[in-house]
Amino acid sequence: MHGTLLFAHGARDAAWARPFEAIAQQMQALRPDQPLALAYLELMQPDIGSAAATLIAAGCRHITVVPLFLGAGGHVRRDLPERLAELSARHPEVQFSATLAIGEAPQIVQAIATAAVQLVDAAR
Amino acid sequence: MHGTLLFAHGARDAAWARPFEAIAQQMQALRPDQPLALAYLELMQPDIGSAAATLIAAGCRHITVVPLFLGAGGHVRRDLPERLAELSARHPEVQFSATLAIGEAPQIVQAIATAAVQLVDAAR
Repeated sequence: MHGTLLFAHGARDAAWARPFEAIAQQMQALRPDQPLALAYLELMQPDIGSAAATLIAAGCRHITVVPLFLGAGGHVRRDLPERLAELSARHPEVQFSATLAIGEAPQIVQAIATAAVQLVDAAR
Repeated sequence: MHGTLLFAHGARDAAWARPFEAIAQQMQALRPDQPLALAYLELMQPDIGSAAATLIAAGCRHITVVPLFLGAGGHVRRDLPERLAELSARHPEVQFSATLAIGEAPQIVQAIATAAVQLVDAAR
């Protein structure tokens, strides 16, 4: 079974997580039969190891990680591969892969530009 | 004149900025007559003070800041208002305002959920 692991930064303020929780809910509604978990790099729980363990316990043997970051800096290019290497060593029966950072998807760039113009127009 | 100031986090890796530069270019294409500047909280230049000075020098007396953050944590709720208060004190002739963080816009939540499902489907 294939599982999806959403990987976000985390913050001290619980309200920070709302958009990420909404993204997870909408993805679950689009693919109700596919296990999905939301994990955080720091400051929030679950971490990526706990979330992966949940997916594996649900029977996932392929886990695709989607970095919910607008840009791909050290967290995506260095921290995430390190954690995936640790997870692969701990769970050799599971295949882990990662997509590009969501902000690097051309349709997200376009959606943000469009939404930002609308927000600015509305603020005038 | 109204100006738009895009406010992003910044990172050590120059490649991190690419989506933000693409967003700025697409917004400028959508509103070619409106001055627009991209600024960073840390690690990259220009900072918000330099970018605001550029817009003000171009004649802007109203500046709308769009936080290019997925979640609204300390950077959006604390750091940005502090900087806007400093800018207002330094430039009393200019009106500064800020929109919600772009990731809190419902259409961005939906766009990310849709794009993430597509990325996961393609990775399988």
